[in-house]
Amino acid sequence: MATTATSVTDLCRAARAASRRLATLPTAEKDAVLHRIADALLDRTPEILEANARDLQAGREAGLSDALIDRLTLDEGRIAAIAAQVRDIAALPDPVGEVIDGFRLPNGLDVAKTRTPLGVVAVVYEARPNVTIDAAALCLKSGNAIVLRGSSSATQSNAVLAAIAAAEAPEGAVQLVAGGGREELAELATQDDLVDLIIPRGGEGLKKALVDVATVPMIFAASGNCHVYVDADADLDAARDIILNAKTQRPGVCNAAETLLVHRDVAGAFLPGALRALREAGVELRGDERVRAIDPEVAEVADTDWDTEFLALVLAVGVVDSVQEAIDHVNRHGSGHSEAIVTGAYAAARAFELGVDAACVYINASTRFTDGGEFGFGAEIGNSTQKLHARGPIGLRELCSFKYVVRGDGHVRG
Amino acid sequence: MATTATSVTDLCRAARAASRRLATLPTAEKDAVLHRIADALLDRTPEILEANARDLQAGREAGLSDALIDRLTLDEGRIAAIAAQVRDIAALPDPVGEVIDGFRLPNGLDVAKTRTPLGVVAVVYEARPNVTIDAAALCLKSGNAIVLRGSSSATQSNAVLAAIAAAEAPEGAVQLVAGGGREELAELATQDDLVDLIIPRGGEGLKKALVDVATVPMIFAASGNCHVYVDADADLDAARDIILNAKTQRPGVCNAAETLLVHRDVAGAFLPGALRALREAGVELRGDERVRAIDPEVAEVADTDWDTEFLALVLAVGVVDSVQEAIDHVNRHGSGHSEAIVTGAYAAARAFELGVDAACVYINASTRFTDGGEFGFGAEIGNSTQKLHARGPIGLRELCSFKYVVRGDGHVRG
Repeated sequence: MATTATSVTDLCRAARAASRRLATLPTAEKDAVLHRIADALLDRTPEILEANARDLQAGREAGLSDALIDRLTLDEGRIAAIAAQVRDIAALPDPVGEVIDGFRLPNGLDVAKTRTPLGVVAVVYEARPNVTIDAAALCLKSGNAIVLRGSSSATQSNAVLAAIAAAEAPEGAVQLVAGGGREELAELATQDDLVDLIIPRGGEGLKKALVDVATVPMIFAASGNCHVYVDADADLDAARDIILNAKTQRPGVCNAAETLLVHRDVAGAFLPGALRALREAGVELRGDERVRAIDPEVAEVADTDWDTEFLALVLAVGVVDSVQEAIDHVNRHGSGHSEAIVTGAYAAARAFELGVDAACVYINASTRFTDGGEFGFGAEIGNSTQKLHARGPIGLRELCSFKYVVRGDGHVRG
Repeated sequence: MATTATSVTDLCRAARAASRRLATLPTAEKDAVLHRIADALLDRTPEILEANARDLQAGREAGLSDALIDRLTLDEGRIAAIAAQVRDIAALPDPVGEVIDGFRLPNGLDVAKTRTPLGVVAVVYEARPNVTIDAAALCLKSGNAIVLRGSSSATQSNAVLAAIAAAEAPEGAVQLVAGGGREELAELATQDDLVDLIIPRGGEGLKKALVDVATVPMIFAASGNCHVYVDADADLDAARDIILNAKTQRPGVCNAAETLLVHRDVAGAFLPGALRALREAGVELRGDERVRAIDPEVAEVADTDWDTEFLALVLAVGVVDSVQEAIDHVNRHGSGHSEAIVTGAYAAARAFELGVDAACVYINASTRFTDGGEFGFGAEIGNSTQKLHARGPIGLRELCSFKYVVRGDGHVRG
């Protein structure tokens, strides 16, 4: 039997109670919890692998694709890597208690805007069981209780991993929703009295399913339709290196480029060499008329290609008349994730920086740097393309709220 | 006819287009817009009053309460005050372009976390037509386009006020949803492709109606069930002044106190005088058994009173055994708005500050200071009790998002 309707609420209520204790837990105690979780992952590796084998067998019987089976698979090396990641998170600075801002009011009141945990964070994820531990570690370090809801294909693996984390964490701080159905998801997403934030990690289908029912505030680690724009004044060698890196270094991730835009003045000089290099790297090219006039081997781009996150070695290529046309194209078709301009012209860089509406705007750099690790945040739970609260990498600080602490000497309002 | 289904989307689409231009509008131009709006409000006062008179007549015919009629009423003085508020907002610092954080990565990339407008903000409000202009001015100053949806009782007044703002603002930047029905509200609240934030300003009914349908991220200016806790080590004169101020200075607002908690060690010394002063100020008192043992004139408190935002001269009073019991009470019954402790003891102050989960925690000061004006934010669109994005006063900065601007020299990821 799946978890009954009542028990999702019960899990959340237990997490809420735990969150009160976690909020004031000293950093050293939180770090000790994380190290104990890492130790337990190593000690209990055989148990984890056994549970994982049961998931894998069920997955093969259910006809899961090779890609999904790979994402589901754990081995000793992967478990050791998960444990190492937990220790890395323990080593990060504690965001709780940071004073973000502080000032004295004219009446003498001292105001300190101080970072606090959010409280209870729910994470809904698909396939990869390592997320169970990564998400729990990030939430515990930031003083939050966590309610996990993984996919049904990883039920056995997630159960063991969550049990390991729960055993080492303060009582109630790590909760796992046992049922994998849409009903449990809807119930979790409507616990706005008990859950402060819900983060879906998965495809657009999961996000859509949640948007329609959620009353809990949501931040989604969203898709990225990212662009590289090569300006008239670009260093063309740097531009070629950047689009190659952005498209091919890891094509299946959200900060990979999906569209190359080139200013008409350099299209003739830039495109033949760049497209050859991209093709040699295995990239399928789809271009507009002006691109195809330069390189007839390029396939015809479809209107929908401009809006597609290929997550594969496919690239849409277009020629534009100006930096403004590039900005307009990016704002119309982009998903607000990571957008790059390559230029030597100050005015073009400034126009692009100011005009593009995205979490990360790059000047003469690859879009691939949008990442909590690269940004020095240490670890992330995803990249947000929303504009509220967290935009870009969601690290420990983004898993926090704040409170104003106001100190007076008997102050009353006149 | 009310606005048709299509046209809410059309309004939002026009606002989205305008938001692109607003995002890069220089501060001086935004301020000039605001001063032109203030001028036009004064110039067109007769027209506003005429429209308002039609709303008032319709309201009286519909049997609106005196309180609602008062909230709906404009006169020359009130219009002049609205215009003055617009000029005050023009005088505030522009939040757009502020660099919130900045650092150089080990690879030499320079990252600047820079404040940007959110884009399109929808404000849904009840009765008071002045919100039309206040909200529009705050959004324009922070570089956002605004979609307004007022109550049907203020249709005529809002139409004139919104037209005045729209005429002076960049084309499309100020939109008013004409229809006041739930259908238009639901359509507005599900424009997640076009609207970045929706702020309800009104009662719990409006909030609930929105939570259930909204797919647009929401921040609500919420209710406040605020507490004053008088600790064993409190200066009892200061404590009396603070609870009097917090309860009676303006009882109908969200940062007024609704519950007084007193440590048992000072209940006998504190309560008789404090309750007398409160009663003399017209406050109806409802206490627990220990309070009534000290002052039998106090009525019996009902369980539901602890959870009630009276917004009136009514106060629940309880005796607690410890600061921890006070903290637990506040976290169980409070709405996370504004909570105060009165104490001379460092340990109690620190426990309360760390343990209470609220937007604003006061030590030896009245809860009444939670206010954008008091905090030096200049103006606010409400006070948030949510934990994401904005908590406490929602001022110009809270109406903003940010982007990471990353500057390199041909950087690619290895």
